Amino acid sequence: MNADKIPDIIIGRLPVYLRALQQLSEKGIQTTSSQELGEIIGISAAQIRKDISQFGEFGKQGTGYSIAFLIERLRDILKVDRGWEVVIVGMGDIGHALARYNGFANRGFHISMVFDNDPKKVGQKVGDYEILDTALLAEKLKQNKIKIAMLTVPATAAQSTADQLVKAGIKAILNYAPISLNVPPNVHVQYIDPVTHLQRMTYYLD
Amino acid sequence: MNADKIPDIIIGRLPVYLRALQQLSEKGIQTTSSQELGEIIGISAAQIRKDISQFGEFGKQGTGYSIAFLIERLRDILKVDRGWEVVIVGMGDIGHALARYNGFANRGFHISMVFDNDPKKVGQKVGDYEILDTALLAEKLKQNKIKIAMLTVPATAAQSTADQLVKAGIKAILNYAPISLNVPPNVHVQYIDPVTHLQRMTYYLD
Repeated sequence: MNADKIPDIIIGRLPVYLRALQQLSEKGIQTTSSQELGEIIGISAAQIRKDISQFGEFGKQGTGYSIAFLIERLRDILKVDRGWEVVIVGMGDIGHALARYNGFANRGFHISMVFDNDPKKVGQKVGDYEILDTALLAEKLKQNKIKIAMLTVPATAAQSTADQLVKAGIKAILNYAPISLNVPPNVHVQYIDPVTHLQRMTYYLD
Repeated sequence: MNADKIPDIIIGRLPVYLRALQQLSEKGIQTTSSQELGEIIGISAAQIRKDISQFGEFGKQGTGYSIAFLIERLRDILKVDRGWEVVIVGMGDIGHALARYNGFANRGFHISMVFDNDPKKVGQKVGDYEILDTALLAEKLKQNKIKIAMLTVPATAAQSTADQLVKAGIKAILNYAPISLNVPPNVHVQYIDPVTHLQRMTYYLD
């Protein structure tokens, strides 16, 4: 199967495979098996073999997968073999934490600008970034052809800010506000909401 | 089907349904349809009907679902009709942001204590919480019978801290460190890693 046609459910697992492979690689390990990967990730070895076989031949029976080769192929498929520019909109606690997080660069992303609409915050420094006025959002995003935003504004402002982002050409939004966003079909949204993750675990607790 | 036997993949969607229903309820809306819910969430109406039918009868053909009733039932199934006590371990930027986040209480969770192993941080206040020494973790968790932890330590400390949590009786970990954790089968782990979410969107970008 062509890399253009991988089902969304498999695409969702590939970043997790990539992270586990990079963990192994950092330990100096050079080959792995679907069994070992499965144990690290908590997915069955059969599922991993099936997923990986969707985009080519990656290992002979018995010799395992070459980690370096699989990492390269996954980075290529996920298009993170380049450095994507990302903006953060909303410089509250989470916005600050993301702006100072040093885990983006080696995984394909670079924070290029950070925004807030609070006059008291605009102009202040957070790490290497000066907080820009959200009023400049459209202009700056278009100028720099930025396609990805992390949305860290309060829930009440999330939909209207998302609308602004879409108008300014953003095609992918990582939404930290605990509401479902309404966006056109050609705009991708992913959600980070700790409560939904906690709630899916409490089902299993006594 | 009994609420004890709902497949994990459906359980994963229920918190998202609950969040959308609560969004509608806050707007004063009293009934909804699988169509409307599907548009909010971005899931097909057929999938929603199928998921909801797994745990009972919730609406007559044509009259829609009672939002209040569905919220009550979902809160019951997910066991968030009570207030779960949660601890935060690791008071860096993300730990701070979570300690000050006010979106837990009305969705079933209460931060009860926060920990760090840095002597400079121990004893300091974050919002209403005094940072406790991680050395006290086992004692405090057992004393208070706490089962849920949010793990916000650096990646290099995540596995060893998870081991401590498991030993102290924790059964559910929300892990913010970008590594896969190795825990016993009776301990649940969910991951929050912004990069995996960004990477599954870049696949679709040009």
